[in-house]
Order: sequence, then structure tokens, then C-alpha cells
Amino acid sequence: MGTIDLNADLGEGFGRWRLTDDERLLSVVTSANVACGFHAGDAATMRRVCELAAERGVTIGAQVSYRDLAGFGRRAMDVPPAELAAEVAYQIGALEVFARAAGTRVGYVKPHGALYNRVVHDEVQAAAVIDGVLLADPSLRVLGLPGSRLLELADKAGLSAVTEAFADRAYTEEGTLVPRGEDGAVVTDPDTVVRRSVELARSGAVVARSGARISVRARSLCLHGDTPGAVELARRVHERLVASGVRVESFA
Amino acid sequence: MGTIDLNADLGEGFGRWRLTDDERLLSVVTSANVACGFHAGDAATMRRVCELAAERGVTIGAQVSYRDLAGFGRRAMDVPPAELAAEVAYQIGALEVFARAAGTRVGYVKPHGALYNRVVHDEVQAAAVIDGVLLADPSLRVLGLPGSRLLELADKAGLSAVTEAFADRAYTEEGTLVPRGEDGAVVTDPDTVVRRSVELARSGAVVARSGARISVRARSLCLHGDTPGAVELARRVHERLVASGVRVESFA
Amino acid sequence: MGTIDLNADLGEGFGRWRLTDDERLLSVVTSANVACGFHAGDAATMRRVCELAAERGVTIGAQVSYRDLAGFGRRAMDVPPAELAAEVAYQIGALEVFARAAGTRVGYVKPHGALYNRVVHDEVQAAAVIDGVLLADPSLRVLGLPGSRLLELADKAGLSAVTEAFADRAYTEEGTLVPRGEDGAVVTDPDTVVRRSVELARSGAVVARSGARISVRARSLCLHGDTPGAVELARRVHERLVASGVRVESFA
Amino acid sequence: MGTIDLNADLGEGFGRWRLTDDERLLSVVTSANVACGFHAGDAATMRRVCELAAERGVTIGAQVSYRDLAGFGRRAMDVPPAELAAEVAYQIGALEVFARAAGTRVGYVKPHGALYNRVVHDEVQAAAVIDGVLLADPSLRVLGLPGSRLLELADKAGLSAVTEAFADRAYTEEGTLVPRGEDGAVVTDPDTVVRRSVELARSGAVVARSGARISVRARSLCLHGDTPGAVELARRVHERLVASGVRVESFA
Repeated sequence: MGTIDLNADLGEGFGRWRLTDDERLLSVVTSANVACGFHAGDAATMRRVCELAAERGVTIGAQVSYRDLAGFGRRAMDVPPAELAAEVAYQIGALEVFARAAGTRVGYVKPHGALYNRVVHDEVQAAAVIDGVLLADPSLRVLGLPGSRLLELADKAGLSAVTEAFADRAYTEEGTLVPRGEDGAVVTDPDTVVRRSVELARSGAVVARSGARISVRARSLCLHGDTPGAVELARRVHERLVASGVRVESFA
Repeated sequence: MGTIDLNADLGEGFGRWRLTDDERLLSVVTSANVACGFHAGDAATMRRVCELAAERGVTIGAQVSYRDLAGFGRRAMDVPPAELAAEVAYQIGALEVFARAAGTRVGYVKPHGALYNRVVHDEVQAAAVIDGVLLADPSLRVLGLPGSRLLELADKAGLSAVTEAFADRAYTEEGTLVPRGEDGAVVTDPDTVVRRSVELARSGAVVARSGARISVRARSLCLHGDTPGAVELARRVHERLVASGVRVESFA
Repeated sequence: MGTIDLNADLGEGFGRWRLTDDERLLSVVTSANVACGFHAGDAATMRRVCELAAERGVTIGAQVSYRDLAGFGRRAMDVPPAELAAEVAYQIGALEVFARAAGTRVGYVKPHGALYNRVVHDEVQAAAVIDGVLLADPSLRVLGLPGSRLLELADKAGLSAVTEAFADRAYTEEGTLVPRGEDGAVVTDPDTVVRRSVELARSGAVVARSGARISVRARSLCLHGDTPGAVELARRVHERLVASGVRVESFA
Repeated sequence: MGTIDLNADLGEGFGRWRLTDDERLLSVVTSANVACGFHAGDAATMRRVCELAAERGVTIGAQVSYRDLAGFGRRAMDVPPAELAAEVAYQIGALEVFARAAGTRVGYVKPHGALYNRVVHDEVQAAAVIDGVLLADPSLRVLGLPGSRLLELADKAGLSAVTEAFADRAYTEEGTLVPRGEDGAVVTDPDTVVRRSVELARSGAVVARSGARISVRARSLCLHGDTPGAVELARRVHERLVASGVRVESFA
């Protein structure tokens, strides 16, 4: 408690298309989940994001995904585990080249989109992601949901597991996220998001949908950068955390 | 002279499709040009080829290409240099992960198909490939045609340039390859290919189309593995070289 | 009974890669499931297969798939229904251009790989495929498994549903296919495949794994063309059917 | 003279990414160049754009491209003519399905990006595009630069050739476009663009870079929709044309 990391997805354009305001986000976050070309992220963008991140001391993470540009990695896929492990390692390796060229290293791995959701419960795919991480570099950290199969298997494999929470998502009393699509799943009021961020960072707690105060372990908060006003909100969260005496600092 | 490397393209399938007989080729060559996913080469195949190559002491090279699965990298593309450099580095990084996992490293870079032909003369793209190699790892070697812009720029950049020759291609008196499509451009008689291989390795010479004997600098011979009988011919070349007192050995 | 169609997957290469022996298969089958570019099938191959099929009076079908070249359409994907419907229509339209240019029309639609398996039970995706077919052309037939959600919904939508059986796959007593991976799921003995083909065509029956003789409705038999000896076996099936008095004829 | 068409590129997003403000542009233009999936344009977007265009009486055109999502079709490619022709036909066919579903037809073809520039001079690729158009539908119009090889070959092939001009591009005294990158190649002042549009439509003339007034044949003006303020400018051009007594009307 008292120390928190802020992570966000970056480099999520592709070729002519842009999505995230990488430059401004990199002045707010302490960890950058960089798209590696499978759901988004062309090579030139990966290079540029790594250079900017390195300049600002932001930790670089590989945001690995299913191979699915058309679906932005948001469509769950039954990828056989040997293929999935190799594809995860491939993406990490591709990003590593730009991290090293910028004078740093890839520090962690975070699955994206449908893969992120799948490895919360899917033992086989979670194990495949871990295999891919181990293949690439056993000193990498793995960022994900507390209680997920992914983090449990990371832990078993001797990888450093880093937990994250979402100040802009509603929680059940059991500490899981209220599924998108259900009423009140997303917290949209900026003031509430800021307040919940501080509470998560300072007390490791959040008010669940039921009104009960629950404990949520999180070394990092995930901020979003792809909606209007998102960067501004991220900046407010950062400022308020600092003003509340929280150290905003990468886990790496 | 007296020492030659044998290189061939490997891992040139993609998903369900297979092209090269990787397993058998790896028992013949000393350098493996491994496809990195842009013209061919899925991640699982890259992993397997690296493992087999490492087991057999075959040097692993990144066979970098234009991003063109549909055209197998055989269609010249006007890729802006900054994009091309980043794409080259991306491919090298992706392969490096599997080379390291197999206990070795990527030792060199060889452009594929239309990119190979383009960087013989195209200053801008040749420089972009070199930039990509430097970005990835300045200790990498670059394999290409003697006299090509690519090797000249590699040399200037302090990269180790490795020359190659083709025993199954006709040469002009100036030492350049007779373009495919022209009469007699490809040498198809296996005995002639074997004889030319030995002559190239032992004397650094070959009989040009005109009948004149010309000098051709080459530290490596490029063998082909994607046609019927190709692996058998490669094996014969290897055996005949050894029988002629040539050391068949990687340049790395 | 007494009349049967023979269908097979064709044009399943992509660019440099070849898989099916299209030319020889087209002299055996009466319906060609042509890959439309999403799991396989480049445009030039689609054109050539349509020309050959039209010459030989073979009915052209659109073998629609998830967008997944890397996985050959064999990885189930959670594609939202509106996207899936549009992608199905896109593929049909692309093939239609080559069918028309060859002087004929696309006659039917058959899902490929993981999509084929998914729409046996998945109501939402089956409905999306039907929506895509209706969008493209309500006079198209739909080829699939008897009892599948796909054929039920085709029927409800007023589309002509065509059933198929597999002489080289084991059946449960309930008339469903024994899943690949289970013992004896695939019938490999050529004589048995030929005998089962004739029985399916003449009596609409087959011996299930349990030994019981069960009824299997099928207007078409699916032959495979991507394994060694497959074309030869297909030819034998065709000959034996004719010799047994069965009319081998497209359903269209 | 006195009648002009307004065309613009539409549907140039892909999956998660958006580029053009399709809805607003469709209330301004009379012809919509719809991306067909090769440089941009997913199937669901193609469907939606066709529906909106049909509702508003906007003519639908196939904006065909090299297969190059990563480069947005802006990188010239040496595609062999048989492949290129088939790929052009494939794209037209895919779009036709959505045009028909919306109760209309594809009315014309316009090459995109690098292909557009290439077929101004490249005889082989221009002929391949025309082959693709003929393969798909010989009643299609072809939209391009006056004097281009593309339009000359369209004419020879009996296809209806439609000329276009660019009010926001500088012209040489010979009537060709000043290449992007040269000083003053792009006209950025909105008032000037509006004035040039009216002059092009009313008098078929424009002031060249040299100051000379030159004649420019054009049945259509190409508007741009992917920059800030672009839709607003397009709307002003449309209004001013009407106010000047020009009939704004599709060529189809």
C-alpha cells in the first residue's frame, strides 16, 4: 500500500490508423502495455513508443494478443497451446528488439483483450501464455487479475506475478469484475474514478456494487487511453494519488 | 578458399502449409535462413527449426522479407525506409527469441525474395535493411550478393558482410546473375551443379554463360530446398565438397 | 436414395502454397467447396478452380470460413454475429465474381473447419451464417450435417438445406460423428471407405461404432483431397458408386 | 460542363479503427469510393456504407487496392498481372454483394493509393486492372485521371471512362498533378479550393502552378474526407457549386 503503478495500453494503431494518444499517455503512466503487431501495433510505432517510454523512464510491457487484426484481439480463439505459446514468445521477442534499441528491456507481459479474459479461467491457454513467457525470458513479470489462473500459474512457474485493479469498473462482492454489458459495469463519473483510484492505492479496497467495502489486492491500476477525455482523467488520477501521499511508481 | 558455408531457406511454410523439408535440409546445410513470419514462417515452425538447427550446430539466420504472405515476399514493394528498417528489426527480434530459447543466437540476416533483389541496387532500401540490422544487433552478419549495395553498406556500417554464390544459376561475364526468365538462367543438370559447387568453393571461379571463366567471391553457397530432388542434390553437393577436400563450415 | 453428390474442398492453397490437387479432384467430384480467401484460397486460384469446375459441369460452392489464414480456419472464434454475417456474404460475393466469369453461378455455401463444427450446435453463429447467405443470395443452398442448427435454420429461412455424410468417419449410434481424437474416429482402410460410401448412397445407412446399423440421411458424401492417396480413393468411390447403380449427380 | 459529380473515399477504417466520417460524407458526395478490404474496409463497414449510400442515392464504387493493410495501399507493389486482375475482381465481387443487398449495384471502379498512381503510366498494371474489371462486370465505369493509361485502356476495352480532377491539388501546365512533396503541391486554403472547384466544374479549367489557365477535363471532383475540417469543406464545395448553377450529379 502507499505505492501504486499506473499502466495503460499504448501503440494500438496500425499503419495509417491511430487509436491511442501515446505521447500524452506516456507522461502519465509508469508502465506501458505496448501492442506487438497481433491485434494492433506496427513495427515503426513499436519503435517510437519504446523510445519515448525509455526517455521518460516508463516500464515497457509486451501486450500480447491472439493474431486478429480484424477483430482487434477481442474475439476469443481456440488456439492450440503450442501455437499460442510460440506466438506469445514471438511478440515478446519482436518488442524486445525495440526496447533494447532504446536502451532498456521489456519488463513484463500483459495479455490483451479476449486473451486477457480467457486466461482468467482457462487453464490450458493460461499455461500456454506462461510457456511463451518462459520461452522468451524467465525474468519477465506477468501482469493480470488477482486470482486469475494466469497469475497462479505464473507464480508456480517462478515468474513474478503483478496484480492490477480497475478504478473504472464495478466489482462484485467476491472481488471479480462485473461483466461489461451488465448495468453499472463501467464507472463513468470522473470524480468517482479518481476517488476509487485513491482508495484502491491507499487501502487496497473498493466499494462493490452491493455497497459492501471489499479488499482488492493491486500493485497496479489500469487506465484507459482510447476514449475522449481519457488522458485528462488519467492525469487527474495521477495527480490525486500523489497529492494523497501515494508513491506512483512502476513495479519493475 | 578451401572453406565454404552452405545456406538454404527453411521454415517457409505457414500454418497448415508446408514447403521446405526442414528436417532433412538441416542435416546438409551449415546455415539456415529461417523465415520470420512476413513472407512465410509461423511462430511454432520458427521455434522448431531453431531447436533442430541448434541441436545440429547449424547457424541460424533471419530471412527477413517484405510483409507479403499472399505474394511470398516475391513482389517488390516501395516501403518507406523507416517502416522497412523497423520491420526488419521486428523480424530479427522475433526469431532471436527462439534462437535463444534453443541455446544459441541469430548469427546473420539475409533478405528474402524481392527484397533480396531490390537491395542489390536500391540504395535507400539497402540502407533501411542495414538500419534494421543495426537496430537489432550490430554484431549480426549480413549475407548477400558480392558487389551488392547491401553488402557495401553493411561494410561501411561496420557489419560483417558475407558473400554468397549460386551453383545452379548462370553468371554473366561481369559476375552478375543472368536474370531468371532468360535462356539458361537456371542450371538444372545435377552433375553440373555439383561440379560448379566444387569449383566455386575451391577456386572461387565459375564458367560464365559466355564460356569465359570468371572469378566469383563467395564464402557461402546458396542451396535450394523447395523443389523435388532438391534435398538429394544438396546432399550430393555437400558430400562432393568434402570429398574434394573443402571444409564445409559456417561463416559464423 | 440411388442418387448421390460427391463434394470435396478445393483451392485450399494460398499464394505460393498448394494443398489440394484441384485438377484431378475436379474430375471426380460433382460439387466443389471452393476456399474464398479467409482460411485459404487466393483470388487467382479461385478464378482457375471456377473455370475448371465450369468446364466439367461441377457445381461451385462457397467454402466460407473464419478469417484465419494462420490457423487454416480450424480455430473456433467468438465472432460477433453482425461481423460474421457480413464476412460470410463478403466471401460468397468474391467467389460469385469468378463463377459468373466462368459462365455459371455459386450454387451453395458450406462452412469450413471450426465454423463448420461450431454451427452444428451454436445457435447464434448458425443464425449469423444464414444471415450472410440470405444477404448474398436467398437462392443459395446450404450444405451441412443432418440435424445441425445450421440446416435447421436454413430450412426455417426458406433456404434449401442439403445433408452430407462422411464415409471415412465413424458414427455414434445417435448418428453423430465420433469426435476426431477418439479411437477409431477416422476410417482409414480404403476398401471400408468405398463399401461405406455405397451403403450410404444406396441405403442411407451406415454401421455405427457400436456395430449397430443406423440410418444417416445424406444427399452428398464429403470426400477428402488433402492426404496422399486421397484422390485415388475418391476416384474408386466414384467408380464403385456408378458400378452399384447409384447416380452420381450434384444436388443443384 | 455545368454538371459535376463529387466523389470521396469512404469506409476506410478496419475493425476497431475508423478513419472517414462516412455518415456525414454521404450527405455531400454523389459517388462513394468504398474500400473493399485490401487496404481498408472490413465487411461490416462495407455493408453499412452500402446501405447508407443506397438510402441517399449515392453511387457506389469499388475502391480497389493492392493487398496491403499495413501500408494502407500506399506502397507500390510489383504484383504479377494475372494476380492483380483476379484481386481486383475479387474486391469488386465482395462489394457487389453488399450493394445488391442494399438494393443497388456497384457502378464504377476506382483504384486506390499506390495502385492509382501506378496505373497512370504503367501499361501492364493498368491492363491488369481493366482485365479485373471486365472479369467482374463489363458494364462498370472506371474513374481515374484524364490521360492516364488506365482510362485509355478502359476506353479501348469498351468500358466507360470517367475523368476526375482535384481542386485541392496544384497542376502543371501540362495538366498533370504536381507531385506531393513538391512545394505548393497541395492547396490548403479552403476558399481557394472552393473557387477552383467551381471553376473546374463550370469551365473545365484551372490555374496551373505557373499561373497559366489550363483546360482540365473532369466529370467528377475528388474530395477528401480524412482530415480535420474536410467534411465541412466538402459541404461548402457542394453548396457553392449548386449556388453557381452547377448540377451536382453522379455520372452513373
